[in-house]
This record gives sequence, C-alpha cells and structure tokens, in this order.
Amino acid sequence: MIEILAVKGIPDVKPGDDIAKLIFDACQKNNIKVDEGDIFVIASKIVAKAEGRLVKLSDITPSIFSIRASKIVKKDPREIEAILSASRRIIRMRRGIFLAETEFGVVAANAGIDKSNVGKEDFVLLLPKDPDRSARKIKKKLEKLFNKRLAVIISDTYGRTWREGQVDMAIGASGINVFRDYRGDKDMYNRTLKVTNIAQADEIASAAELVMGKKKGVPVAIVKHYVYDNKDVPAKKLNRKDSKDLYR
Amino acid sequence: MIEILAVKGIPDVKPGDDIAKLIFDACQKNNIKVDEGDIFVIASKIVAKAEGRLVKLSDITPSIFSIRASKIVKKDPREIEAILSASRRIIRMRRGIFLAETEFGVVAANAGIDKSNVGKEDFVLLLPKDPDRSARKIKKKLEKLFNKRLAVIISDTYGRTWREGQVDMAIGASGINVFRDYRGDKDMYNRTLKVTNIAQADEIASAAELVMGKKKGVPVAIVKHYVYDNKDVPAKKLNRKDSKDLYR
Repeated sequence: MIEILAVKGIPDVKPGDDIAKLIFDACQKNNIKVDEGDIFVIASKIVAKAEGRLVKLSDITPSIFSIRASKIVKKDPREIEAILSASRRIIRMRRGIFLAETEFGVVAANAGIDKSNVGKEDFVLLLPKDPDRSARKIKKKLEKLFNKRLAVIISDTYGRTWREGQVDMAIGASGINVFRDYRGDKDMYNRTLKVTNIAQADEIASAAELVMGKKKGVPVAIVKHYVYDNKDVPAKKLNRKDSKDLYR
Repeated sequence: MIEILAVKGIPDVKPGDDIAKLIFDACQKNNIKVDEGDIFVIASKIVAKAEGRLVKLSDITPSIFSIRASKIVKKDPREIEAILSASRRIIRMRRGIFLAETEFGVVAANAGIDKSNVGKEDFVLLLPKDPDRSARKIKKKLEKLFNKRLAVIISDTYGRTWREGQVDMAIGASGINVFRDYRGDKDMYNRTLKVTNIAQADEIASAAELVMGKKKGVPVAIVKHYVYDNKDVPAKKLNRKDSKDLYR
C-alpha cells in the first residue's frame, strides 16, 4: 500500500531560503515520520522562489520581436521577452500561447513561466534553471537532515495535447530512476513487452498533486512505501529528443 | 493522507465475466475494507476482455488501403484494419504507428489496440467500446455489492507528445468529476486563477498505476481518503475538441 502525505506549514518562500531545512522543520512540527526511501515531491514554484527566479516586469526591455508578437498572442511584451529568455526553441505560437522548449528541455506553454501564486502583480516566476540539479542539492540536504536515503522529485503542472485539463509532471529528480522499464521483460503470458517504459516520476508527481492542490498552500508531499530503482536517472531523460518527436 | 491499495487475486478475465463480482470476491478474499467514496481504478484490459473485445486476426479481411499502408508502417495489414475499425480519425501515420482518435474520442497510438497481456498470438484486444458506459455499469454493481457510494475509473497506458515513457490516464469514469476546476478561484495571494483545471481522473489513474504495474497481474487498485466532487463528469470530457486543438 502506497501512502501520500501532505507536508503542511511551509512558510512563504523567499530568495535564498533553504528548501530542505523548511521541509525538515515542517515535518518535525507536524510529527511526520520519515522513512528510508521516502520520495519528497516538491512544487517547482517554491524551488524557483528560493533560487530567486522572480523577475520584475519593469526591469525587462522587450525586443522589437516581442513588441510585435504581443499584438498577435495578446500578452505583455515584457512577459514575452521573459518567455524567450527562458526558451531554446519555439514550437508553436498560437491562441495566446508560446509553446516553447525551455532551456533545460521541457516543452511547456509559455516556457513554464507563471503568474499565479507569485504574489506580486508586476512579477513573473521562471522555472528553476536546472531542476535536476536543484533536486540533487535538496536531496543531499534532506538526507543529511533526516539521516535516511531519500528521493526528490520537483513537479510542475502541465497541459497536454489532445487532452483537457492539466496534470503534474516531474521536471527534476534525484535518487530515483524516472523510468520503470519493462522493455524486454515478459508479460503475464510470456510475450516480450516491446514498448512499455513507465514514466514513474511523472506518475508520482501526479499522485502527489492529489494532496498538494493549488490553493491549499501545500507545496510538498511525501510518497511512502513505493518500491523503486534508486539509481539516478534524471528528469531531463523524460524530454523526448527532437529527432524522435513527431510534433516538432 | 491518501492510500492506494492493490487488489490482488483477480483471475484471468473471460468474455461475459462480471468485473464487479470478480473485484468484490477479491476484496473479500484479501480482507480489503471498502469505505464510502473509495475510488476503484480498473485496467481497461480486463474490462475489454469481459466485453469480448478480443479479435482474432485471421477473422479480419484487410482492405486495399490496409495492405498498402502495412508496407509503410510495417504492421500486419489485419492489425491495421482493426485499428481503422476502432478509429474515427487518423491524425498521424508515421514511424510504425497510427496516431488515431478512437470511436469514443481518445487520441492514442494504434487506437489503443494492444497485443501485450492478451495471451494469444493471433489476437488483438480493442479498447472497451464506450469506457464511460462501462464505468457506470461497474460502479452501479460495485455499489450494490459493497452497499457504499463509490467511484470507478477505467485506466489505460499512454505515450505523450514531447515526453519519453508512458503514464496511465482515465478513459472511463463514473461517480466522480474528472476535473478539479480552480478557474475563477483565488490563488494564495488573492489573484484569480485563469486556467487551472486539474484533470484529477488522469492523476488518479497515474497514481493507481504505481501499485498495478504491468507484470504483477494486479488490474485493480483502490484509492482511499481522496476528497472529490462526486458529480458525474465523464472521461469523454477529457478529450479536447478538434476545434480547440493546436495539433490536428
């Protein structure tokens, strides 16, 4: 039986805050018992805030392109400039959104730049610069504080093609293989499985979202008793290569 | 705290089997306590088998198109014929796959037709004909057997654009609103949320997959203590309308 716990009582995160310490303190305060192998799922938002990824719009000078594009996608040109600065490729620019590949390789509407739960009208929040690296750092600190082997997944909320609504996915990971690979294994009837390679880190992020929510102020969840391969395969491996993608 | 339980001991499903009764018996045998509001997540495969959706390839006469296409996508022309018969739209036909919109509206590689865990070399398994209807029927029977208000989600494993690996998603649902809609609500800082509408049924299907797996022979999981809106909004609402989609 898997259990998913909400970690409550994490204060509003400021640039420079130690996320691991905030999580440790919240667990102590709420008497949450942490066990060997527990997976901490952390909303990208608080990681980005701790890393100082809040950008003031009035500090941005939009380019000629951003000003021109703002009339097409109906966005603040400074916001477009922020999106471009966080992107390495624009895949679609339509219906008010930039579908962009971020600097670390995730494909996301508006390069994952967020205005909700930022708290200031004149600011946008970029994603962490390298979420796998962030996950590694937080994992190391958490392991030291709790004195246990742990895993960390940094999650963010995404829309999908062909599908209404959003789900959480993993954009950073450490201490866990983001895949559970069945390729080459036999199915129940002894047939070789050819394609099944479960993106377990994405499923764990989605599962954790069920206790995190958007309004509850619960940016961290703990997934307990899930057995996984703890060999580090980072979240960037979840990004399909351009050359293998039918949609770019 | 959410709990996710594997329901073990469900026998190999045959056409005409009563899925609700098989689940009820397995729960009794394994002393699983079922509570008001529990969500049963059921692999589409056993639902399809019970509905007699196994098709014998040698019974299929491929069309001229299927024979011609078989040279391009490198598939058995009879399998292509089965894919077409389960589809209402072909979106892409490339790299050995048909990306197709099924008769009930999900976009899936090869219209969700499966050869793994089918058990017979000469057979393919189609998806249930109307998974929301299947979910409704199973839910009603489960509620009668357990004498509790319950919800049912029928899940299947899907690849995603831009993303390696697969996750489980909901293709049928009953007794639950497949969305948790925040649009119009305020965020932590009193800003109105404009787009957030969580596809909670997809997240629940993903969460359940973590205990179901592909080889374990666990086609059913129970999600406990998750609070949700139990107004029926079926899984077909998760299918984005053609007119709203950037990729068709």
